[in-house]
Amino acid sequence: MATLYHHWLSPAARFVRVLVMEKRLDVTLRLEKEWERRQAFLALNPAGEVPVLVMDDGSAYSGALAIAEYLEDTIAEPALMPENPDGRYEVRRLLGWFHTKLGTEVTRLIVSEKLFKRFLGMGEPDSDSVRCAAQNLKTHLRYIGHLASRRHYLAGPVFTMADAAAAAHISVADYFGDIAWDAWPDAKDWYMRVKSRRSIRALLADRIPGLVPPPHYGDPDF
Amino acid sequence: MATLYHHWLSPAARFVRVLVMEKRLDVTLRLEKEWERRQAFLALNPAGEVPVLVMDDGSAYSGALAIAEYLEDTIAEPALMPENPDGRYEVRRLLGWFHTKLGTEVTRLIVSEKLFKRFLGMGEPDSDSVRCAAQNLKTHLRYIGHLASRRHYLAGPVFTMADAAAAAHISVADYFGDIAWDAWPDAKDWYMRVKSRRSIRALLADRIPGLVPPPHYGDPDF
Repeated sequence: MATLYHHWLSPAARFVRVLVMEKRLDVTLRLEKEWERRQAFLALNPAGEVPVLVMDDGSAYSGALAIAEYLEDTIAEPALMPENPDGRYEVRRLLGWFHTKLGTEVTRLIVSEKLFKRFLGMGEPDSDSVRCAAQNLKTHLRYIGHLASRRHYLAGPVFTMADAAAAAHISVADYFGDIAWDAWPDAKDWYMRVKSRRSIRALLADRIPGLVPPPHYGDPDF
Repeated sequence: MATLYHHWLSPAARFVRVLVMEKRLDVTLRLEKEWERRQAFLALNPAGEVPVLVMDDGSAYSGALAIAEYLEDTIAEPALMPENPDGRYEVRRLLGWFHTKLGTEVTRLIVSEKLFKRFLGMGEPDSDSVRCAAQNLKTHLRYIGHLASRRHYLAGPVFTMADAAAAAHISVADYFGDIAWDAWPDAKDWYMRVKSRRSIRALLADRIPGLVPPPHYGDPDF
């Protein structure tokens, strides 16, 4: 069976977890604390980051977007991208938008300020960074709502990798109770649709030791 | 004719310039100072970043990796990725490596410290950041040399998008005279091969107003 090295707090690893479940690829999950920089893990991925997918034959795949495209190239069904070039472009544009822009402006700030500092005993979260992430998150929820209200899913009428990427990041922010969902009805409708999928529900069943998410976190009818 | 919005200092825009030349797509280059946040430009790309490729029919494409895949999907020849899934994976892994890792650890630091601060009158470069970028750059030159000495080009025996991405970033660092090439013979051999391409030579003919590159910058036999 394939092995997927992941961490609960890595949106990139969450994204690939969703994809392997959608593609029905059986994987054993293995928790990797990438900040410990374990030599055997660095041999699998010189970038030292999760996710890393190791197939049965021992070949290792790293880089969330490269893994995603590899899965799409090798496991045709179910397709997680449209067939036409413009549809594929839009999915990939949104992959970049969520992983890079939402990731830098929101998720990385939340995880480093609210979690790493606490677990590593580095003091209180920096309130400017937390406020900045909260402000940026509003812009992204507005954009998600804008896309979903016109298209049903983010890149079009069906679930694609773009939804998996957005859900991976949004679920991290939601774990920390950072989203006032009632203020974002269109984004909430989309997230309810997404949460009803088996792949996303599996993700939301995780609990980070010592940290309890808000009651609505795993509930599709929130 | 298509239009490509770019800026000299954006490695992402340099990358797409190389791809459109390799694919022989005629484009008019248009300089966009993305930090001015021009409304008409934001309408083309809500992320407000170059590169943006606007085709004859007015459709706009943004996000360097999304544009790259779109060009590969729509202009088959010359191929800038292998056909087999593992080869494609390796190109995409390296695209992530260069655009994200090398970009964050080296190019962004160099451009913001050495150029933006100067042009925007924000004082001297921060010496810690400059030293950090220089140290990181060595690791990346070692890795480029390691790949090139085994494969000829970075992802395999022929030129791919991975080479275009690395050259886009390396050319920015080289403009500022930050590379002591004689210390990196394998990386230098690769860069000489790459510099002999028409697509890269066109890039290296640019001059940033008020900033002269070192004499070897545009010379393939340096």
